[in-house]
Amino acid sequence: MLSTDIVDVIFTIPEEVRFMLVDGKHYKTIWPNKALTGVTIIDQTYLPFEFKLTELTSLGEVVEAIKFMRVRGAPLIGVTGAYGIAIAITQNSSDQSLIEAKHQLIKSRPTAVNLSWAVNLMSDQLQREPRNDRAKIAWMLANKLANEDVETNQSIGEFGFKLVHKIKKSRINILTHCNAGWLATIDHGTALSPIYKAFKEGLDIHVWVDETRPRNQGMNLTAWELGQENIPHTIITDNAGGLLMQRGEVDFVIVGADRISIDGNVCNKIGTYLKALAAKAHKIPFYVAAPLSTVDLTYHGENNLFDIECRDEDEILKVKGMDASNNLTEVQIGYSSAYNPAFDITPSRYISKIICEKGIYNPSDIGKALK
Amino acid sequence: MLSTDIVDVIFTIPEEVRFMLVDGKHYKTIWPNKALTGVTIIDQTYLPFEFKLTELTSLGEVVEAIKFMRVRGAPLIGVTGAYGIAIAITQNSSDQSLIEAKHQLIKSRPTAVNLSWAVNLMSDQLQREPRNDRAKIAWMLANKLANEDVETNQSIGEFGFKLVHKIKKSRINILTHCNAGWLATIDHGTALSPIYKAFKEGLDIHVWVDETRPRNQGMNLTAWELGQENIPHTIITDNAGGLLMQRGEVDFVIVGADRISIDGNVCNKIGTYLKALAAKAHKIPFYVAAPLSTVDLTYHGENNLFDIECRDEDEILKVKGMDASNNLTEVQIGYSSAYNPAFDITPSRYISKIICEKGIYNPSDIGKALK
Repeated sequence: MLSTDIVDVIFTIPEEVRFMLVDGKHYKTIWPNKALTGVTIIDQTYLPFEFKLTELTSLGEVVEAIKFMRVRGAPLIGVTGAYGIAIAITQNSSDQSLIEAKHQLIKSRPTAVNLSWAVNLMSDQLQREPRNDRAKIAWMLANKLANEDVETNQSIGEFGFKLVHKIKKSRINILTHCNAGWLATIDHGTALSPIYKAFKEGLDIHVWVDETRPRNQGMNLTAWELGQENIPHTIITDNAGGLLMQRGEVDFVIVGADRISIDGNVCNKIGTYLKALAAKAHKIPFYVAAPLSTVDLTYHGENNLFDIECRDEDEILKVKGMDASNNLTEVQIGYSSAYNPAFDITPSRYISKIICEKGIYNPSDIGKALK
Repeated sequence: MLSTDIVDVIFTIPEEVRFMLVDGKHYKTIWPNKALTGVTIIDQTYLPFEFKLTELTSLGEVVEAIKFMRVRGAPLIGVTGAYGIAIAITQNSSDQSLIEAKHQLIKSRPTAVNLSWAVNLMSDQLQREPRNDRAKIAWMLANKLANEDVETNQSIGEFGFKLVHKIKKSRINILTHCNAGWLATIDHGTALSPIYKAFKEGLDIHVWVDETRPRNQGMNLTAWELGQENIPHTIITDNAGGLLMQRGEVDFVIVGADRISIDGNVCNKIGTYLKALAAKAHKIPFYVAAPLSTVDLTYHGENNLFDIECRDEDEILKVKGMDASNNLTEVQIGYSSAYNPAFDITPSRYISKIICEKGIYNPSDIGKALK
């Protein structure tokens, strides 16, 4: 059966390559169902409170999941977009359906360039295929992207590990912002991939986890991921990194990216730039780890600011947590109006190296990796 | 009657000098009861959800209120400490009682130098007085400190206003961190005093309010204060300031201080340093506004790091807010362990000016203001 073959593609990755654990069991962040009509995701809005799997079986559900950050992280958004195309084309294989799916997906989150990259790649290939073959090919392509993401992140882990390994200290303190772990990808993660590798290789590491307001991806996701793997880590407020660097308690900073300019300026989660400024002031290496699909060929120069996604003020003014009766409860913490830009730009001069699947690059040379 | 006279001291400040409003009514953050047995405070742990007044009638209650941040802000902590001495000495006027009160108060919060300054000043004077006069004199001295704080902050407002007034823009955007408003003092505030003055003088100002994790003094207190005075303001996450500066949306930064070294290094709420780094990178003025009682004569040089107060991890891992039924509820938002240092140090080279009651100083010259 064809469909079984296709599903198998995603699970044929050898066991030793699969890494990420939830309660001791290997997981990925997204996978197709056997009938090839939908995908299962880990609904990340419930973490760390509940590990909840959700099935998405329509384009609308995929768009909603991206928009409401049930899946998030640039690489995972990209692959989810690709599966969204597969789901749409399975239900209606027309050109019109393809175009409509592409537009809806791309506008679901504007910043992560991986999303438009993956969706355009799917759409360009499918347009050239006969309608009857489109669904089959779409699932194959989406699975291929998912598998490539895992390989890419494994390479990032290996290259990044070389940088970690160079630090000659008994305990290595790493600071990270937001979540660029396996939850932000299909597996392994980007910024966390070298950390997982270093831990596996027996290095004594400890991770400072920026809580990453307003959505708390650090507190909710990074800390949870690292906890599942038993990697020593400590949550800090986004305010604390400067003091830790002053005291020499950070050996390097590593973050992911949502969009990288061809000359190495990095758009990433709001607050990244403040950490890069502090790292520079204290001569601490500041690394960005991301797949090359994050590089935006049309984005050049640090002042070329594309529209940065601005999200709902309620993300700042309301917080979700467990109440005393262990019910997941949302509370209102602020009453004035709030402004909630989701990303900032770190100019290339504050970045020590960009780690991608092809190697370690000076930021201004990242364009060369694409050739 | 003597006691009535003494209470009157605190309310003899002319109406035009009293400024801060709650629901249209003038308030201070602390005042003695008419019997001179205790003080009333605004319990700041309930803001912005509830405006709650609490009476403190024992040394233990005063220590608890400082420790649990029912009162907070360096100048207010200082005056509260002074009233704490008055309460203790009213109940027991012995030398032993004075020494015990002094020790308990000073260790209730270690960082704000105003606390030890005020408590030592009270204790030194009272020790020289006959036991029978001590209570009377203690209340008089504490009231005097409270009144002087108001005058000091008014001066800070006037000097600071000169800096605001120099900015030739139709709308002036100001960023502040934590709460250095009237809630942090007896009235007017330190960092917010020039802002209140500028608004009163008709300047078109807008304040970016850092929420200031983990205790959210910006979201809870600064936004509430500014709202009561109808001053345009917007809450932002602590992560957002860098982006706003990149975009030219911040004209200056102004913050308070918990301790200032004799050569102008500033210990203030955790996260202040990151904003100072960003302001420097964007050539944006970074001002510190504080009374001279904040200057620590024994603190010199940026590397002379005294012990920075480290508070309970639950301040990061739990958050209080209003649930859907309008009940004030605490929810658990994180599960890993957390590290919660309360302050950081901004070296003098990142500070444009320090504004105190004697004028506007280059940071390295702040010691001269004490002469």
